[in-house]
Amino acid sequence: MVMSLNITIRLRLANRPGTLARVLNVIAREGGSLGAIDLVTATPSYITRDLMIRLRERGHLEELVQALQNMPDVQVIHVADRVFTRHLGGKIEIIPKRRIENWEDLSLVYTPGVAVISETLAQEPEMAYKLTMKGNTVAIVTDGSAVLGLGNLGPTGALPVMEGKAVLFKQFANVDAVPICLDVHEPQQIIDAVLALAPAFGGINLEDIAAPKCFEIEERLNQLLDIPVFHDDQHGTAIVTVAGLINALKVVGKTMDGIKLVMSGAGAAGVAIAKILLRAGVHNLIVCDRKGAISQNNLPKDPSKAWLAEHTNPAGLQGSLKEVIAGADVFVGVSAPGLLNREDILKMSEKPVVFALANPDPEVQPEEIYDIAGVIATGRSDYANQINNALAFPGVFRGALNCHARTINDEMCLAAAHALAGIITDKQLTAENIIPSVFNKEVAPSVARAVEEMAQRTGVARKVAAVGFESELS
Amino acid sequence: MVMSLNITIRLRLANRPGTLARVLNVIAREGGSLGAIDLVTATPSYITRDLMIRLRERGHLEELVQALQNMPDVQVIHVADRVFTRHLGGKIEIIPKRRIENWEDLSLVYTPGVAVISETLAQEPEMAYKLTMKGNTVAIVTDGSAVLGLGNLGPTGALPVMEGKAVLFKQFANVDAVPICLDVHEPQQIIDAVLALAPAFGGINLEDIAAPKCFEIEERLNQLLDIPVFHDDQHGTAIVTVAGLINALKVVGKTMDGIKLVMSGAGAAGVAIAKILLRAGVHNLIVCDRKGAISQNNLPKDPSKAWLAEHTNPAGLQGSLKEVIAGADVFVGVSAPGLLNREDILKMSEKPVVFALANPDPEVQPEEIYDIAGVIATGRSDYANQINNALAFPGVFRGALNCHARTINDEMCLAAAHALAGIITDKQLTAENIIPSVFNKEVAPSVARAVEEMAQRTGVARKVAAVGFESELS
Repeated sequence: MVMSLNITIRLRLANRPGTLARVLNVIAREGGSLGAIDLVTATPSYITRDLMIRLRERGHLEELVQALQNMPDVQVIHVADRVFTRHLGGKIEIIPKRRIENWEDLSLVYTPGVAVISETLAQEPEMAYKLTMKGNTVAIVTDGSAVLGLGNLGPTGALPVMEGKAVLFKQFANVDAVPICLDVHEPQQIIDAVLALAPAFGGINLEDIAAPKCFEIEERLNQLLDIPVFHDDQHGTAIVTVAGLINALKVVGKTMDGIKLVMSGAGAAGVAIAKILLRAGVHNLIVCDRKGAISQNNLPKDPSKAWLAEHTNPAGLQGSLKEVIAGADVFVGVSAPGLLNREDILKMSEKPVVFALANPDPEVQPEEIYDIAGVIATGRSDYANQINNALAFPGVFRGALNCHARTINDEMCLAAAHALAGIITDKQLTAENIIPSVFNKEVAPSVARAVEEMAQRTGVARKVAAVGFESELS
Repeated sequence: MVMSLNITIRLRLANRPGTLARVLNVIAREGGSLGAIDLVTATPSYITRDLMIRLRERGHLEELVQALQNMPDVQVIHVADRVFTRHLGGKIEIIPKRRIENWEDLSLVYTPGVAVISETLAQEPEMAYKLTMKGNTVAIVTDGSAVLGLGNLGPTGALPVMEGKAVLFKQFANVDAVPICLDVHEPQQIIDAVLALAPAFGGINLEDIAAPKCFEIEERLNQLLDIPVFHDDQHGTAIVTVAGLINALKVVGKTMDGIKLVMSGAGAAGVAIAKILLRAGVHNLIVCDRKGAISQNNLPKDPSKAWLAEHTNPAGLQGSLKEVIAGADVFVGVSAPGLLNREDILKMSEKPVVFALANPDPEVQPEEIYDIAGVIATGRSDYANQINNALAFPGVFRGALNCHARTINDEMCLAAAHALAGIITDKQLTAENIIPSVFNKEVAPSVARAVEEMAQRTGVARKVAAVGFESELS
């Protein structure tokens, strides 16, 4: 699936004009894209450099190294795969907020001083939001049953993804996140494990748990816990999709309540997107699974699909995706690569909006439809308009933690989508710029603010008791 | 239990010679011990200062503030409890080892690059030691059933202690530690929860779990997991106690195999200390619980006490602690305050070694026996020779993680005790200096080295497969 390779090659080059240029020619000829070039050491005779190179395919590495070794004046010292080197030793660490320097510090943060904090919390557990990690920490919980698009890789296979997510949580929204990779797989076992470990956390981010069990797990945990439980594969994707759609409709001059929207995919993301689209005002929504349009005419057994049958497809359309897409204004795919082609998009209405989000290969290749689509979005960073969960989850949890929210409700998700869409001003908005970059520094604060405000408005923010440990005497 | 209070008082003082001196006199008169004094701001008329003060009792605060407010030229701006202020927002955070600066970084540590790491780990889970947090991370797991000496404060009450422990883990031994406070209390539930969350961790530090369930939980988890499971209240205490005893016996010129050693306390710590003492060569060991000496003559029902009855007290002594202590060379107490007095210690043999480790109040007050004891140790930092777990657990886990140990066995614990004792050189060794300070920088590295070596010798260190991601080409 992931074919490209990021490597660092260390070369010792004769210190002679033109040597590096010849090396770069060889790399280009072998199909490598050059990133940074670092100088390691230099002597009058030799210069040692690190070259960062991306290769399209892993198999090209040997040929490239061979070609470099065959060059006069060039010696290959060492080749390292950058993805692996970036993972050596893991990607996160857990550090003290303040170092302990002496006995006094020790007695304040550990025994005997900590005893009074423990006693306070035993009596008033909600003070944990103020006096412990809980107020700023979420658990990222997975059983590894649906890791990225790769399927069931198990808890250890999921761990590097959860660590990567913890990196994004901290860097984008200053949320502390702990990867929890569960070695249990039955819904009830996962529910029990999360209930057991919940006390130290201000929220639970469920991640990469396969459908349909993810629905039951999230629903039950949300009933049983008084902290937010948020399955990012569902709601994170839904928030960013709707944000993109809000802006895409502005570009093509249509409105939520006027469009015919056809979706492909009724898994975790599909169901959540459908629900938030209904809340966003879409009336004419048709969701297709592998068997075609889901409708009340042939009620599915699966509870989440049955819900879709009851709440979508008001005209009771039947038929395959390729049939029902005729006349649609918007297509949203969270399903499988290559389900649609140029002819299918030509059957849609004027200026069709195409969100082909299957990863890594979209439902229809953007190259096939650039000239006929109004707006195109994918899940990939190498096309314009990337629908990327990282735009949502850091800010959503930041907002929820800020107000010690009890849950993250649909209203908060929709508010997040509007905030995210609003970051693109009318002046900036074009068919190729409907959604901000994950490196846009406005993203997490804007989303957090909107989520927190909606938590207050919908009554799920906790009021924190006035603190009793600091008295202002004048 | 914890009566003293650490506060910071901010005062605005008239900028006149002698004002501060008068303030300090008032503080002393009211029974406050002065720590640091910080200058906050100064103008020609006023100087604002922060004074750090320890009060023996919480109740004295009001009187002190009143006395200061009554002074001319002094205004009390603000009083803060330093234990509480040091806990605001929690004590630990989770940070990226390297920041993500651009798309390339993101693609290396998150999608799509991370996919190849996940696939590698799904096939070779042991590579997680190299490529994820697992190789440097332990879970500190509690159910809050025996928090410090305070009893069952529940998982939230335990959280600040676990965070404090995570601070010590990182600062003393660069171990990343995650507090896990479980909201389940039956042994099987605790076992199930730990089994479920284990994959991301290289070790499990059980903490503050009440006896006797702690024994069963630790034993079962050690059978079922292939990572170390170490109940610190048991083995941490045991390691440091034995380390202290090794040096104490040098001071009084006695040997492990020649002494009569009487213990008080057969809880979590007591049982573990007894086991490691037997392994350290003590033959004549008598353990007392509330009913007196445990012996085969009246076999206890509790399995861990029955074990003690079978393996200790070779002479079959019967009677109360105060009776069996007659003629003992060493007393080790991990029980309750004030069980012994000067008369009892006088009944012991020449130069008696007294480890009165009950916290915060020892089995016998050191002041009562300074002139008759050979060596005295307590659990407190305000007497010489503090037996402090923080001397053991950071180095023990550092050593275990360094070699990816499958378990922490008795041999490793005893090696840790010898390493800890060895830090005090013969020249430094005195009756008042048998054990290093927790701030001694040799402690964790020495303990870690000894633990790692013994793991290799006893065959519990993993051999890590040669890594396949970096090829040295020349």
